[in-house]
Amino acid sequence: MKTIGIIGGMGPLATVDLFKKIILHTRAQSDQEHIHIVIDNNTDVPDRTACIEGHGASPVDEILKSAKRLESIGADFLVMGCNTAHYFMPEILPKLSVPFMSLIEVTAKKCKEKGLKSVCLLATFGTYESGIYKKELEKYGIECLEPDDDGKQAIEDIIYYGVKACDASYDTKKFVALLKSMHEKGADEFILGCTELPVAVEMYHINDKFIDATDVLAVEAVKFAGGTVQ
Amino acid sequence: MKTIGIIGGMGPLATVDLFKKIILHTRAQSDQEHIHIVIDNNTDVPDRTACIEGHGASPVDEILKSAKRLESIGADFLVMGCNTAHYFMPEILPKLSVPFMSLIEVTAKKCKEKGLKSVCLLATFGTYESGIYKKELEKYGIECLEPDDDGKQAIEDIIYYGVKACDASYDTKKFVALLKSMHEKGADEFILGCTELPVAVEMYHINDKFIDATDVLAVEAVKFAGGTVQ
Repeated sequence: MKTIGIIGGMGPLATVDLFKKIILHTRAQSDQEHIHIVIDNNTDVPDRTACIEGHGASPVDEILKSAKRLESIGADFLVMGCNTAHYFMPEILPKLSVPFMSLIEVTAKKCKEKGLKSVCLLATFGTYESGIYKKELEKYGIECLEPDDDGKQAIEDIIYYGVKACDASYDTKKFVALLKSMHEKGADEFILGCTELPVAVEMYHINDKFIDATDVLAVEAVKFAGGTVQ
Repeated sequence: MKTIGIIGGMGPLATVDLFKKIILHTRAQSDQEHIHIVIDNNTDVPDRTACIEGHGASPVDEILKSAKRLESIGADFLVMGCNTAHYFMPEILPKLSVPFMSLIEVTAKKCKEKGLKSVCLLATFGTYESGIYKKELEKYGIECLEPDDDGKQAIEDIIYYGVKACDASYDTKKFVALLKSMHEKGADEFILGCTELPVAVEMYHINDKFIDATDVLAVEAVKFAGGTVQ
């Protein structure tokens, strides 16, 4: 089986989540039947959103350093749990010696496989601004709907004042109303395009048609590594 | 801050647990305030218990390979989540170029700090057989009590038929009776000396005076790396 390299640290708990999902999706009866995974939880990578918004250092050098470290210890291909950081990959890809499996690409492909015509992206301001999901979904002729500014704010709020603040009694009314309004605008399903959002929908028991990008990546990474998915 | 290297894969979910506990114990307001961690989730390491029991290959070479890979990408010190694997460290330590923080040593020190006179080790057959906790606790004059064979079997059972089998309705009667009987024999507290046991006591809501060895290691690793513990 191939060794998976995880470029991590963006953020650390999202890295834990991707690592754990890869393990849980691998059919294995013993430690030895699991996939060899190497991780660089690199917390020296500057903030991605700040850079996209024009007021922060570029994360390219540090992401590349992580990739090279992982290549040097045997990673056969690389993955990365942070949605926003994918915006910088075109600068990094030509410098890699091993394949990179894009979270955005596998999620867009998943939408195509499901036969979706129109999906709504749930993400942070930085990811919307980067346009990475829109570009990838358009390749398959899938419409990428985005909420209006109030809707985007409802997403930021559930992430920052709900999940990150560990507020179990956070009022999800605005977030739930946003989902309803996006269905009315034609959204078939929702891409959870921020690593905090799978946590949010579980924590607040919000049921809808969600595509967890991290989960899609974990499954595809297991397959590409040569493991059996469970 | 120092970079922590985790020799992992023994088993993969125990590696996730140690990684996550280090992050959760670090006081940080942003990704950049977290600790740089590198992980080798090496699933090529042969079964440790089988080797100790005399019917399996030695894990020494693979553990050493992991350590060397982590050193090569900048680990300033190394930790390992698997209790049983610590039995093999005397063979490995002389070949390392960076310090190794022992799960067993920090747990024994924790028992000393708490002023304990007598603790009961809860572990797998392999860990009992290795004698690693007993040896370390005796350095501090702390008695290391072990259950009788029926008690040891109750521990194996809750690990294999409870946690590993994901049986939420597993009957914990024998395990709870074991704790009671060990208190009667003089145990002040219990060392959860197998990575599945913190999961078991949480899953089955078993309350007693437990020392979670993985948690102790996570806290000490954060301190040694130069982070602030929360």
